[in-house]
Amino acid sequence: MKDKNLPIQGLKVTLHKRPNGMPKESDFQVSNFQVKGPKDGEILVETHYLSADPFQRMRLNAFSGYGKTISLGDTIKGRIAGKVIISKNPKFQKGDFVEGMLGWKTHAISDGSQIRAEYAPGVTQIDKKIAPIPAWLGILGFPGITAYFSLIETGKLEKGNTVLVSAAAGAVGSIVGQIAKIYNCKVIGITGSDKKVKHLIDNLGFTYALNYNKGNISKSIKSFAPGGVDIFIDNTGGPIADEVYLNLNLNARVVLVGNISQNNQSSEIQRKDLQNMIMRNRATVSGFIVYDFEDRANEARKKISKWIKEKKIKYDQTIEVGIDNAPRALISMLKGGNIGKQLIRLPISIKENT
Amino acid sequence: MKDKNLPIQGLKVTLHKRPNGMPKESDFQVSNFQVKGPKDGEILVETHYLSADPFQRMRLNAFSGYGKTISLGDTIKGRIAGKVIISKNPKFQKGDFVEGMLGWKTHAISDGSQIRAEYAPGVTQIDKKIAPIPAWLGILGFPGITAYFSLIETGKLEKGNTVLVSAAAGAVGSIVGQIAKIYNCKVIGITGSDKKVKHLIDNLGFTYALNYNKGNISKSIKSFAPGGVDIFIDNTGGPIADEVYLNLNLNARVVLVGNISQNNQSSEIQRKDLQNMIMRNRATVSGFIVYDFEDRANEARKKISKWIKEKKIKYDQTIEVGIDNAPRALISMLKGGNIGKQLIRLPISIKENT
Repeated sequence: MKDKNLPIQGLKVTLHKRPNGMPKESDFQVSNFQVKGPKDGEILVETHYLSADPFQRMRLNAFSGYGKTISLGDTIKGRIAGKVIISKNPKFQKGDFVEGMLGWKTHAISDGSQIRAEYAPGVTQIDKKIAPIPAWLGILGFPGITAYFSLIETGKLEKGNTVLVSAAAGAVGSIVGQIAKIYNCKVIGITGSDKKVKHLIDNLGFTYALNYNKGNISKSIKSFAPGGVDIFIDNTGGPIADEVYLNLNLNARVVLVGNISQNNQSSEIQRKDLQNMIMRNRATVSGFIVYDFEDRANEARKKISKWIKEKKIKYDQTIEVGIDNAPRALISMLKGGNIGKQLIRLPISIKENT
Repeated sequence: MKDKNLPIQGLKVTLHKRPNGMPKESDFQVSNFQVKGPKDGEILVETHYLSADPFQRMRLNAFSGYGKTISLGDTIKGRIAGKVIISKNPKFQKGDFVEGMLGWKTHAISDGSQIRAEYAPGVTQIDKKIAPIPAWLGILGFPGITAYFSLIETGKLEKGNTVLVSAAAGAVGSIVGQIAKIYNCKVIGITGSDKKVKHLIDNLGFTYALNYNKGNISKSIKSFAPGGVDIFIDNTGGPIADEVYLNLNLNARVVLVGNISQNNQSSEIQRKDLQNMIMRNRATVSGFIVYDFEDRANEARKKISKWIKEKKIKYDQTIEVGIDNAPRALISMLKGGNIGKQLIRLPISIKENT
């Protein structure tokens, strides 16, 4: 195809109405647009596959949390894979295959840059010798990369761990479970139908799988993992995650990959606390109880004693007197009435013989 | 004092009514009990100080989450420090000073064991040469040890970090802030009065402090830490913590030490999700976005490609056809209609010249 054949008519999927809760087909529109030729440095890609991914749901909201949202009438943010049909970039040949976040349309322009951020119009070269085109949107695309790093890096996978994954039959979950199996882990998948349960166990080698629509989720997990769950790769959040939290091991690792249960709630009842942890800061939140460090208490005492001696650290005390006033002192402390340590000094009632 | 002087009358603080929300003085009772002598291996301790600590609030509930709760009429769980007045344990001399979780009473028996768990009746020897007795319930006791390990170990303190602590003027918070200062950190304290703000800055050397009863907490934090907060030692949970979460840095560490704002809510409106992380499992929850790993995408692709080749990993695809059906495919995926990666294949509309 030569440039002179352009412009031609392409098709794109656009946002017609902002959904509140689960989207409806009428929230979208498919319409024509003029496909123009690429400028110097650019390539024109003919789309062979559109990718449907959970993150797209958030981009339909007025506020998406991570990256830019889209306006009414805009093309739906989405990854595509296709063939380079015109190249004005020396790194690409006509006939090359690429994938990238180029939006849901039949023809798309890319600047041919390496993909560096969610919204850069870059592309990844597809090597069909490694796997067919659609695999580059799945197992070799961001779902596969998500599965790999969420489990290995953020989840700190160790051989023999008990790993639980939600949305286990999905693009990310199915790869998470299989990677964990390669590392000799016990793998539990949570999914939404008996058919998927059977698929996970029979075809993908999961150790256990459960249908969250049946029975008590927490009890099922406990029966599969009486010793507790070491790593939880959470794709859903919400009530399913709550049941998993009841079965976590001491110092378990939870990786918040998705929050799909909440993304499709109406905005009024969405739980956004964990969503913010994914979108805003990828923070790590750890529970702490000092008794876990009891064996090492003297290590802290030694260091703090040194700092006291060097006058690098001060300590305040708020002291009430008499056991009758102990409840009042406790309540005052709970209300923030103290500065530093709240204590109750008892006048000594028994004479010492010493 | 000789054994023959026993039994004598002691006093204890007991639970009279279970509080719902903030406790009242009438929820407690102070009453007499018979102090008896220690058995072989035990010591009798005369209490000089009772310690008032936030964890005690939870032990007043019917279900406390961590460890055993107490029944109506039972002595309030609490730490004390005092003098050994009778020793039938060779490790202790009459006149030694000890601290331990021996309960809120004027005289207490300990088995003299090393403290190994919250409820073991063990004690720690107090060395008055290092610091006076009450310090062993505060800066050299569990509040100090909590401050030290929550910041250094769980919070992974690094020199130069921006550290924020809530309940900053309390027993734990005031030590957290000062330790962070020793490590050349910027330290922000959240507290409940202007007087405490002044104390934190003028006397304890905090870089910044704010009164959560005044102005917009999130905006104040942003003005103190425009580059974001690296470590958040959370003693309160609830709405104050929510404001801090809005100002966390990428890959910030949050350590959940206390949940005092929620412990004193009536049970109906308590937020228990994070409480469970402290009490049940000390899990680490991390937010994850694959784009943080974009630079390393090929590392994952290489590994996964190898596993595909070795037939160690399979990938499923659910493929819809035609751009008109793309919205339906997205919705179906959001509802869990897919197995594996959801894709939309587009019949190619433009003839290729190749």
